[in-house]
Amino acid sequence: MAQQQLDPTDPVKAGPVNGDALAGYLRAQATEFLRSLRQHRETGGSGSAARASSGGGENGTDQTVDAARALRRSARRISGSLHTFRSLLDPDWSERMRPELAWLSGTLAREHAYAARLERLLGALNRLSGSGSEPGSGFPVQAGAEPSAAPKGQLTVGAAKAGALLDRQLTLARTRAHSAALQALGSSRFHAVADSVAVLASEVPLAPTASTADLRPSATAAQGRLLDAVGSLPLLTAGHPYNAEALVHGLSADTSPQPQDVPWHQVRLLLRLHRYAREVLRGGEEYPADVRLLAAGQALNQHRDAAEAASAAASAARTPRIAPATAYALGVLHADQRHEVEAARFTFQQSWQKEAVRTH
Amino acid sequence: MAQQQLDPTDPVKAGPVNGDALAGYLRAQATEFLRSLRQHRETGGSGSAARASSGGGENGTDQTVDAARALRRSARRISGSLHTFRSLLDPDWSERMRPELAWLSGTLAREHAYAARLERLLGALNRLSGSGSEPGSGFPVQAGAEPSAAPKGQLTVGAAKAGALLDRQLTLARTRAHSAALQALGSSRFHAVADSVAVLASEVPLAPTASTADLRPSATAAQGRLLDAVGSLPLLTAGHPYNAEALVHGLSADTSPQPQDVPWHQVRLLLRLHRYAREVLRGGEEYPADVRLLAAGQALNQHRDAAEAASAAASAARTPRIAPATAYALGVLHADQRHEVEAARFTFQQSWQKEAVRTH
Repeated sequence: MAQQQLDPTDPVKAGPVNGDALAGYLRAQATEFLRSLRQHRETGGSGSAARASSGGGENGTDQTVDAARALRRSARRISGSLHTFRSLLDPDWSERMRPELAWLSGTLAREHAYAARLERLLGALNRLSGSGSEPGSGFPVQAGAEPSAAPKGQLTVGAAKAGALLDRQLTLARTRAHSAALQALGSSRFHAVADSVAVLASEVPLAPTASTADLRPSATAAQGRLLDAVGSLPLLTAGHPYNAEALVHGLSADTSPQPQDVPWHQVRLLLRLHRYAREVLRGGEEYPADVRLLAAGQALNQHRDAAEAASAAASAARTPRIAPATAYALGVLHADQRHEVEAARFTFQQSWQKEAVRTH
Repeated sequence: MAQQQLDPTDPVKAGPVNGDALAGYLRAQATEFLRSLRQHRETGGSGSAARASSGGGENGTDQTVDAARALRRSARRISGSLHTFRSLLDPDWSERMRPELAWLSGTLAREHAYAARLERLLGALNRLSGSGSEPGSGFPVQAGAEPSAAPKGQLTVGAAKAGALLDRQLTLARTRAHSAALQALGSSRFHAVADSVAVLASEVPLAPTASTADLRPSATAAQGRLLDAVGSLPLLTAGHPYNAEALVHGLSADTSPQPQDVPWHQVRLLLRLHRYAREVLRGGEEYPADVRLLAAGQALNQHRDAAEAASAAASAARTPRIAPATAYALGVLHADQRHEVEAARFTFQQSWQKEAVRTH
C-alpha cells in the first residue's frame, strides 16, 4: 500500500466534525427526498411504462424518471449515513429505518435497471453485428424487429431474434417492476417510510452524546472497511489486461450470479458508503479530489451492469424451443458482456492505483 | 517513429555481406530439408493419423511430427530467402521454386493446424466450463465424451456437445489433410521439389554478380516492407486494453476470415521474412536481440490461431439440427477466441513498442 500523503481536501484530516454536521446532512437529504417524492406524484408517477417501446420521452415521463432517480439518490444517502454513523444516532430508530429505505430504493430502482439492461444488450448486439448505426438512427435490432428485415445471413438473423427475445423478456420484467413500484408507492409501508423521513427533515434523532462527539472515527472506520475489501480483491490479476478471468465458468452449470463477482459488488457498496461519509464531513459538498473516487465507483457500476446483462443473456438462452442461431447469438452476447465485466475490473484497478496514493 | 539507435547486433549495420553468405545459408537449409525428409520417410510418414483420437504419442509418431515440422521450417526459410534476395539469384529458377515450396509446406502444415485448433478449442471449452482440470489429467470435454459424463446443467451439456461436434469436424478435416499430405509426398510434383532442393544443397544458382553484390539492401527492403505494414496497423487501438474491436462483426453474416484480421496476417508473414533475412546476414545464427522480434512473431501466431479457432467455432454453429445449448456454447467459444485475437494484438503492440526503439 502506498504511503500516507497530505491531502488538503481530506475531511478526516481537517479537524473534528461534530454531530451537527450529520444532523444537517440528514435534514438536507430528507428534504430532498420529500421534494422528489412530491415531484414524482405531480408528474404522474405511473408514466414510465409509456416509455416501454417508444424509446422517446414525453416531458412528464422524463420528469417522473428524474424524480424517481432523485428519490433513490437521497434514500441511499440517508440509509448509508444511518449505517456509517449509527453510534451517533438513536440505534433502534436507525436500525428500523435502514431496511425500509433499502426496500424502497430497491423497488424503485428495478424498473430503471431492466430498461438499462435491455438498452445495453441491444446496443451490444448491434455492435457485434457490425451494423455501425449512428446514435439516434435507431437500432436495427430493436423491439419487435422482424428477422427478415435484418441483413442476410443466419447469424444476423440470430442476432435479430436474440434481440427480440431479450426485448420480450426484459420488457415484461420491466412492466412487472413498474407495477410493483406503483403498488409500493401506494402501500402503508411506504407511507410509514415517508412519515419517518418527514420527521428526519425537521428533527434528527441524535444520540445524547452526538453534539460533542467527533464524526471522524466513524468515517475512518467506513474507509477502513472499504480498504480491507479492496485489499482482498484480485487486483493483480485485474490489472493484467486480457486475463480471461471473468469468463471462467462462462459455460458452467451454475447460472446464478457468479461467485467471483460478489467481492466486487461488495466493494461497490462500501465505496458508496465511503463517498457518502466524506460528503457528511464536508457538509454535503463533493470535492474535485473525489473525481477519482467517482471514476472507481463508475467502473464498479459498469461491472455490476455488465454482470447482470451477461446473466440475462444466459438466462434468455435457456428459453425452451429457441433456434440454434438465436442461442449462438446469446452465447456471443454473454461472453461479450463477461468481457465487459473484466474490462470494468481493469478500469477499477487503474483508477484505484491512482487513488491509492492519495487515500492512504 | 523512434529515432535510430546503434544496435551492435544489427547485421545490416555490421558491414557488407556478399552472395556467399546467401549461398551458405541456402545450402545449410537445403541440407536440413533433405535430412528431415529422410527422417520423415524412415519414421513411417503415415504415423500421425494414429494420434487422431489417442492423444498420446508413440515414438515413431512423435518423430514423424518433428520431422514434418523441421521440413516445413527449412522450406519456409528457403522460400523466404529466395523471395527477399531474388535479385541475387537466377530469377527464373527462384520464381519457379517458391510456389512449389509454398505448396509443400502448406500441405504438410494443414494436418498439424487442425490438431492444434482442436486442442485450443477443447482447452478453451474446459476453461470456460470452470472445470479447472490440471494439465495432463485429461480433458473432461474430449473426443467422444458423453454429455452425461459432464457435470450437470444444460449449458455444461452444451459445452460437452460442442466439444464433441468440434472434435468430429476437426478430426475429419485432419484425417483428410493427412491423406492429402501422404498423397503429396508420393507425387511427382513433390519429387521435383525434392530434386530441386537436392541441387540447392550442393550448388546455389546465384546470379553472375552475386558474389560481389551486397545482401544488405535486399534485407533492408524486407525490413522496410515490414515497417510499412506495421505502420498501417491500428496499433493505437490495439494498445488500449479491452477496445472490443476484435468482436465487432462477431455476429455479422459474413463468415469467411474477417477483413480486419488480414493486415495482421500480412505483418506476420513480413515479420518472418525479416527474421529470415537477418539470419542470412548473420550466417544462420539467431541473436539474443531477436528475442523481442520472436515475441512479436509469437503474438501474431497466436492471433492467427485464435482467429482460425473462432472461425471454426462459428462454422460448427452452422451445422444443421444442433441443439440450442450446443449453439450457445459455440457462441461463447467464438467470442472467447475473438477476444484472444484482441489480446494477441495487444501483446504484439506491447512487444513492438519495445522493438521499435531498437529496430529503427
